[in-house]
Amino acid sequence: MSTLSTNTSTPRTTLTVDDYVNGVLAGNRTVLARAITLLESSSSLHEPLAQEVLRRVLPESGKAKRIGITGVPGVGKSTFIETFGTMLVGKGHKLAVLTIDPTSARSGGSILGDKTRMQKLSREPNAFIRPSPAGHNLGGVARKTREAMLLCEAAGFDIVLVETVGVGQSETALRSMVDFFLLLQLPGAGDELQAMKKGIVEMVDLMLVNKADGENRSRAELARAEQEIVVHYLESATPEWKPQVALSSGLTGDGIPQAWEVIEKFYRELEPKGIIKRRRQQQSIDWLTDLIADELHRKFYQHPAVSAQLASVKGALLQGELTPMQGAKKLLAAFSGEK
Amino acid sequence: MSTLSTNTSTPRTTLTVDDYVNGVLAGNRTVLARAITLLESSSSLHEPLAQEVLRRVLPESGKAKRIGITGVPGVGKSTFIETFGTMLVGKGHKLAVLTIDPTSARSGGSILGDKTRMQKLSREPNAFIRPSPAGHNLGGVARKTREAMLLCEAAGFDIVLVETVGVGQSETALRSMVDFFLLLQLPGAGDELQAMKKGIVEMVDLMLVNKADGENRSRAELARAEQEIVVHYLESATPEWKPQVALSSGLTGDGIPQAWEVIEKFYRELEPKGIIKRRRQQQSIDWLTDLIADELHRKFYQHPAVSAQLASVKGALLQGELTPMQGAKKLLAAFSGEK
Repeated sequence: MSTLSTNTSTPRTTLTVDDYVNGVLAGNRTVLARAITLLESSSSLHEPLAQEVLRRVLPESGKAKRIGITGVPGVGKSTFIETFGTMLVGKGHKLAVLTIDPTSARSGGSILGDKTRMQKLSREPNAFIRPSPAGHNLGGVARKTREAMLLCEAAGFDIVLVETVGVGQSETALRSMVDFFLLLQLPGAGDELQAMKKGIVEMVDLMLVNKADGENRSRAELARAEQEIVVHYLESATPEWKPQVALSSGLTGDGIPQAWEVIEKFYRELEPKGIIKRRRQQQSIDWLTDLIADELHRKFYQHPAVSAQLASVKGALLQGELTPMQGAKKLLAAFSGEK
Repeated sequence: MSTLSTNTSTPRTTLTVDDYVNGVLAGNRTVLARAITLLESSSSLHEPLAQEVLRRVLPESGKAKRIGITGVPGVGKSTFIETFGTMLVGKGHKLAVLTIDPTSARSGGSILGDKTRMQKLSREPNAFIRPSPAGHNLGGVARKTREAMLLCEAAGFDIVLVETVGVGQSETALRSMVDFFLLLQLPGAGDELQAMKKGIVEMVDLMLVNKADGENRSRAELARAEQEIVVHYLESATPEWKPQVALSSGLTGDGIPQAWEVIEKFYRELEPKGIIKRRRQQQSIDWLTDLIADELHRKFYQHPAVSAQLASVKGALLQGELTPMQGAKKLLAAFSGEK
């Protein structure tokens, strides 16, 4: 059993920063799980401690392949990850599976669900499945998942799969933390399918038409042909990489070794060119920038003088009594005036 | 000649707010042009005056159809606008043509270019062609174009075409100020064509495969068939509107009356449902929010203590010596500490 709950009944001793750092670096799963729990804590007492642990293990992070997976509900993500992940651990990899799900507000996240839906994988000693951190705020949930990813890397996991349930902007958050982005699509074409969410095709490095088994096979072939046109017309997500479209079946395992070959090819071709490194550096800078913008936003809109006037300014704007520029100046003056 | 230069040699008298407001509302093109020049001024003395003029004419704005046009260089935008615009004034419409081009930093914008490339239209008394405001900053250029659009509406223009040259994020800025978004595409398919910029297909209400004349016709038909697949798979830009793909030729005029019919249908179907009104309200709120975010961003990064530390924080981040969270906290502390 590799999944560790935050609600374990085992009594806990307090760990020091050294304990966390040494335990994570030694690949101790219990300590890793507790370190992630510490990161996920909303307590302001825990945050500096968690950040210090993270800072100290940072030099040992960054060594995994970071793969993002998404797809609409019903596309077969869990079965796919179960089959794909079991294959990877069978090849000797150490695999961490993380989730971004801002709708999972239950304490401890969707752990029971994750264990249930990936039963075989969760019994693998070299697989570590961690549910989504709790939270309604995508920014916060995504940040915690990203930091958990770094801890998993420092603990020696050489592949991190991050999946998202595709709520709101969660694919964008996912894209911003992984190297390789895999989209699972349903077999079928034309009007059977929902149109893809804005921007998602342009994030893709590999699109798999999943459930391409049994009677679905010919519809999946058709879907692949159409998706290839779509992918062809849109700008690539990754420089010097042409997004690919292929078939897969989480159920039969068809296409899954080939999907892994595509991912290996991606790293084999792009790593020597420095493309992966540059992407990660840009992602770090983007995270810094986003964290700052989020905090400035929070401070501004929580400022009493701003929140007192916001509704009336918006009302005046919609009534045509103020220009957006005048409205902005008014709120900015309220913000500065009381600082 | 309807285009008015900011560099006119006619001596100018100073206009009061009342002069501007009355002149614009009376449809006086000279005053309209001067009011736009006032809006475009970077002088802090002019800004409150310009905003006051804008605020006073706001109740008379909002009555035009707001149409955005983009397409890669070489797609034939100018010829298209010339033919399309001439048709519209021929139907009795009053048409304003505005541009967003953050690369046009010359004083007075690209006025000579605009006159040259739309010679026939620029001679129409019911057409008003205004070059892009000068500036390197997309936010600033787009804001000025949007405000110029409101002045044109207040001056009685019932159709405003806003085109962009498609630099950087200028299509997104364009989408955020128009009701209807028209993308011109080159005829041809497959590898002949550059992949479309990220997100652009999802902004489209109508895609025209332009230059569909002479020998291009059959390639254009093929392109249309493929683009219909692309458009079909992606989420619509406008609720309850299925983006359409058609052929056009700015040169022969083929397809141009039909394009106008599509635009009229768009308004006929969506206006009674309140979809246009809701889009504009959302756009106003988004502009307010963006102006505030831009100003907070500017204040933050221009703060001496922040700019003094930014490079070292980014360096430490890229060296793995700091987490993005720790970097953000450090810069935020520098920002607050000295305020």
